[in-house]
Amino acid sequence: MLETFPNQYTGREYEVNITCPEFTAVCPRTGQPDFATIRITYVPDQKIVELKSLKLYMFSYRDQGIFHEHVTNKILDDLVAALSPRSMTVEGDFKIRGGIHTVIVANYNNSE
Amino acid sequence: MLETFPNQYTGREYEVNITCPEFTAVCPRTGQPDFATIRITYVPDQKIVELKSLKLYMFSYRDQGIFHEHVTNKILDDLVAALSPRSMTVEGDFKIRGGIHTVIVANYNNSE
Amino acid sequence: MLETFPNQYTGREYEVNITCPEFTAVCPRTGQPDFATIRITYVPDQKIVELKSLKLYMFSYRDQGIFHEHVTNKILDDLVAALSPRSMTVEGDFKIRGGIHTVIVANYNNSE
Amino acid sequence: MLETFPNQYTGREYEVNITCPEFTAVCPRTGQPDFATIRITYVPDQKIVELKSLKLYMFSYRDQGIFHEHVTNKILDDLVAALSPRSMTVEGDFKIRGGIHTVIVANYNNSE
Amino acid sequence: MLETFPNQYTGREYEVNITCPEFTAVCPRTGQPDFATIRITYVPDQKIVELKSLKLYMFSYRDQGIFHEHVTNKILDDLVAALSPRSMTVEGDFKIRGGIHTVIVANYNNSE
Amino acid sequence: MLETFPNQYTGREYEVNITCPEFTAVCPRTGQPDFATIRITYVPDQKIVELKSLKLYMFSYRDQGIFHEHVTNKILDDLVAALSPRSMTVEGDFKIRGGIHTVIVANYNNSE
Amino acid sequence: MLETFPNQYTGREYEVNITCPEFTAVCPRTGQPDFATIRITYVPDQKIVELKSLKLYMFSYRDQGIFHEHVTNKILDDLVAALSPRSMTVEGDFKIRGGIHTVIVANYNNSE
Amino acid sequence: MLETFPNQYTGREYEVNITCPEFTAVCPRTGQPDFATIRITYVPDQKIVELKSLKLYMFSYRDQGIFHEHVTNKILDDLVAALSPRSMTVEGDFKIRGGIHTVIVANYNNSE
Amino acid sequence: MLETFPNQYTGREYEVNITCPEFTAVCPRTGQPDFATIRITYVPDQKIVELKSLKLYMFSYRDQGIFHEHVTNKILDDLVAALSPRSMTVEGDFKIRGGIHTVIVANYNNSE
Amino acid sequence: MLETFPNQYTGREYEVNITCPEFTAVCPRTGQPDFATIRITYVPDQKIVELKSLKLYMFSYRDQGIFHEHVTNKILDDLVAALSPRSMTVEGDFKIRGGIHTVIVANYNNSE
Repeated sequence: MLETFPNQYTGREYEVNITCPEFTAVCPRTGQPDFATIRITYVPDQKIVELKSLKLYMFSYRDQGIFHEHVTNKILDDLVAALSPRSMTVEGDFKIRGGIHTVIVANYNNSE
Repeated sequence: MLETFPNQYTGREYEVNITCPEFTAVCPRTGQPDFATIRITYVPDQKIVELKSLKLYMFSYRDQGIFHEHVTNKILDDLVAALSPRSMTVEGDFKIRGGIHTVIVANYNNSE
Repeated sequence: MLETFPNQYTGREYEVNITCPEFTAVCPRTGQPDFATIRITYVPDQKIVELKSLKLYMFSYRDQGIFHEHVTNKILDDLVAALSPRSMTVEGDFKIRGGIHTVIVANYNNSE
Repeated sequence: MLETFPNQYTGREYEVNITCPEFTAVCPRTGQPDFATIRITYVPDQKIVELKSLKLYMFSYRDQGIFHEHVTNKILDDLVAALSPRSMTVEGDFKIRGGIHTVIVANYNNSE
Repeated sequence: MLETFPNQYTGREYEVNITCPEFTAVCPRTGQPDFATIRITYVPDQKIVELKSLKLYMFSYRDQGIFHEHVTNKILDDLVAALSPRSMTVEGDFKIRGGIHTVIVANYNNSE
Repeated sequence: MLETFPNQYTGREYEVNITCPEFTAVCPRTGQPDFATIRITYVPDQKIVELKSLKLYMFSYRDQGIFHEHVTNKILDDLVAALSPRSMTVEGDFKIRGGIHTVIVANYNNSE
Repeated sequence: MLETFPNQYTGREYEVNITCPEFTAVCPRTGQPDFATIRITYVPDQKIVELKSLKLYMFSYRDQGIFHEHVTNKILDDLVAALSPRSMTVEGDFKIRGGIHTVIVANYNNSE
Repeated sequence: MLETFPNQYTGREYEVNITCPEFTAVCPRTGQPDFATIRITYVPDQKIVELKSLKLYMFSYRDQGIFHEHVTNKILDDLVAALSPRSMTVEGDFKIRGGIHTVIVANYNNSE
Repeated sequence: MLETFPNQYTGREYEVNITCPEFTAVCPRTGQPDFATIRITYVPDQKIVELKSLKLYMFSYRDQGIFHEHVTNKILDDLVAALSPRSMTVEGDFKIRGGIHTVIVANYNNSE
Repeated sequence: MLETFPNQYTGREYEVNITCPEFTAVCPRTGQPDFATIRITYVPDQKIVELKSLKLYMFSYRDQGIFHEHVTNKILDDLVAALSPRSMTVEGDFKIRGGIHTVIVANYNNSE
């Protein structure tokens, strides 16, 4: 589902930061909607993520039941598989539930 | 009281940030309520804290008399005992008293 | 419980605004704590509310189960009874629950 | 779907303000998700809206295709039907699309 | 160029607020680009403006040389002609030039 | 103590707004310092307050014990006596004490 | 010095708001620089102020010694003389001196 | 197109930060305008960029179709070619499209 | 004057941050009041500062004439003498005087 | 012109931060005023800059024509000559011109 296009500046390490403030999934325990902002930062190698396909990928979680901690890691896994970046961070910033606000931050580094 | 569920991404060091803006305890000196925001950041190992049990744990301080410095350290001790995280920081940000605002920050690192 | 002291400037209509960001009561349905900021605005007649007694009055709700809409009106009733102000507004601004934020605003006007 | 409970302070005109920052529906033209904050202000007569049922009512739009202007008016119609308030305002504040941000504001007044 | 769709709630006076932060035209004196945010508020009668056509209408100014005061009034004229609204306000908020920031606000009211 | 200079524009009703964020007095009950921002707005008649003398006037409260409600009214009385303005508002915005924030607003209008 | 160009929309009452954050003059008492933001709002009749000439007009105060209250009124007088507007407000917002912040607001209305 | 003037302080490593909030180009896929803020930070060697020529250089993208990732790198290449700086960072901060916000950050370091 | 109580968590390096926004002293040159916010950060060893005594200590400067740079260092010296902390930073953030804002930051580290 | 007084705490490396938001000079190309905020941070050795003389020094640029990059470096040179600090940073933050905002940052370190 995630499409890419070729990076024309592979000779340089540069950073792409993407913010998706319109993420929604379903709480696997209560069945009620969760809302989050997903932030992605990566240093591309050969591929850059195409933004429209990324938007559709984000929408695909709309009816899925999944925990905050796991969805953040799964998005990282899927994007690393699709892009083979030099490095990547995914941050899931979830709206307050029961008076508690959670943010999950997961990293990938190709050189480690 | 603190419940956990298994971390499915133990192969990766990732961060969980939790903010509880609705913490209240009692001043051991004056008997009057204290209000604080508690912020928790940890890198999970095998266990992730279940948020509903964390909320109830926070509510358990509602009638306890305890100093700012000590409650912040005690929350860190209790969470480290329940989660055995790779590392953890607890921050207690207390509302102004007598024109003075205090924030306590305590760290735990398993590898030290 | 609410104490007052005499207004020395009864010849002038002036306004007193009070903000109490540290209000907590209990949800009558779930038994869990609610948190709110209570804002009071009044034009005093003969009496001014003494702030320490107001603080203790606010603390008296700590273990009471009461709905948002009702507690705001009850605070207004109690303050009007204690102060006989020319006019008064009480606003209860409650922290988000289930993704929903509520603010209740009730007015009293002696001349109506 | 919208449940109510009796207003204990019918002798006073007071205001209830409710903010739901987690509203999502579907664009009837593109089939893609829309996100909005819905703000409701009303002066209750005999009935107060129960917040949990309001939350579920908001969630019922998750898979519906409906225009910004129409959904805001429909929420107003449904709430007026359920609550028979003295007056009510519903505001739909929709996230930016195509570089354009829209806010719809609709009013109801029983005395007109 | 401006397209509309029928208003389904003609029985009610409600407000539509639109913000276009991505407006650019050309200064008729210097030939250099001007940037502005255009804000539109209207009470629809029979017609609602279709947002995609509004976006294209805004883009049509990209190469036109026109003064701040005049372009704001012209947008009002064009929208009034296309929508026949009950009332409308157009605000042009132009980025600083020569250390000076200008905002133009023009109104139309059908009942006057 | 309050000095004035002649208003050269007596033919026009215009407004002077003054903010003094560095006001301090003493609590008459506890003997401890109070801190406030004093805001003054007036429409001058024949006289304008000289700012350096106003600053010294504000400093004269540094060792005085006086209640929030009374000091705000006293400043209004003193300024009205010195300036004979067409109208004036004095606002005393006091720093939080015991978790409570207070703002006092008093008005004077010559034409009433 | 103030230049104008013809208003093409004389049939409509619309508002022009201008903010000049880079105003500086000299204190007539101490000889030291004063800094201010000047805000102008007017409803044009036949003439619109040309912004470059306004900028130069503002710069002409750079070496003049003049009180806050008087310079605000003088700018209003000069602009009214040059533009004959339907109405105008000039606001002088002066940087803090001796811990005191002042804002002067003067109005002109042609129909009074 | 990019003009420079000689750096008089070549003996010292100092930083020049430039923010251009008025950048616009065209999306190569949809043909619709993109808007961005371009931020440039560099340590000059012999040459400093002349700001008016930089402004014109930025305007030259107005009708070009180019991807976010590529235009940021191209601006870096062009500025490095014109200035031969000791180091430089270019950041392209693009307005939200399809609910997604992107920021691209590219670096150059002469000593690497 | 500065009182302490025993640290119960000496086995852990944790941080205490204290903000006192209500500090006032006297300018040794002009005799006029100075206002500041004092921020203290320390890692306690055996002792924790008691906040009420700290408040009184701060009030003791109310009538003292002392320079910004020196009072910040003196507070650091006094607190280090009273607490023997592992490390400490004191920051004095003084309100604008003559259009100039100053912040003094002084550090102490026991291990150096 | 820059006066100093002796540092009483030479045994400790501490930081002095000074912000002057009221700087103005003249553009050497256009002859029009430039406005900036100058920020100075230094670690004093034997001397501390006297703030009133610093203010007058800043005012001395009021009629000088000088580039942004050069004036920032010149202020650094003059302050280093007057104070012989252990280290110093000067930052010139200039108001937007032609839609472009520039900040220059220059450092001095005695130990290099």
